[in-house]
Amino acid sequence: MQTIEELRRQIDGINHELLALLSKRAEIVAQIGRIKSLEGKSQSHYDPVREEQQLRDLEARNPGPFSNAVIKKIFTEIFRASLDLEESNDKKQLLV
Amino acid sequence: MQTIEELRRQIDGINHELLALLSKRAEIVAQIGRIKSLEGKSQSHYDPVREEQQLRDLEARNPGPFSNAVIKKIFTEIFRASLDLEESNDKKQLLV
Repeated sequence: MQTIEELRRQIDGINHELLALLSKRAEIVAQIGRIKSLEGKSQSHYDPVREEQQLRDLEARNPGPFSNAVIKKIFTEIFRASLDLEESNDKKQLLV
Repeated sequence: MQTIEELRRQIDGINHELLALLSKRAEIVAQIGRIKSLEGKSQSHYDPVREEQQLRDLEARNPGPFSNAVIKKIFTEIFRASLDLEESNDKKQLLV
């Protein structure tokens, strides 16, 4: 049996992978925001249809042990964070 | 330049990786919970010192673009979800 210390080291490793993926995801979301701005269709970055599509996809693939409700809650937090970042990027561009 | 569709496919791929890592992380947290129960030291699974240690580690490694405050918010949501899962596991054991 593994010790608590070994398991915690595994969790730290997963945390680092999650952080790297979240950061990469945020960069891609920023790229999409820039394309939308160039195409002049970025009144708002909030896209409920696209969010719903991602949530349905994740719920269909969810292996557990987290319930779909919990997965939805975590990803909704990620969507909100990405949206806030996009909106602060817009404000920076307006100030230039 | 990549199209929005291509970038969205990349985001879908990252979502799947995040889901797999979150699920793996939840399994490891459950293993730690079982060890603590066996050792008779699981009055509560909430461990603020260990959570703080994880947050400090993540903040030190955060490459951006998310601020440390946002990373803390997302991971705190993950910690809460893991804790809820542990506590519901405890209740199931009590009912057996």
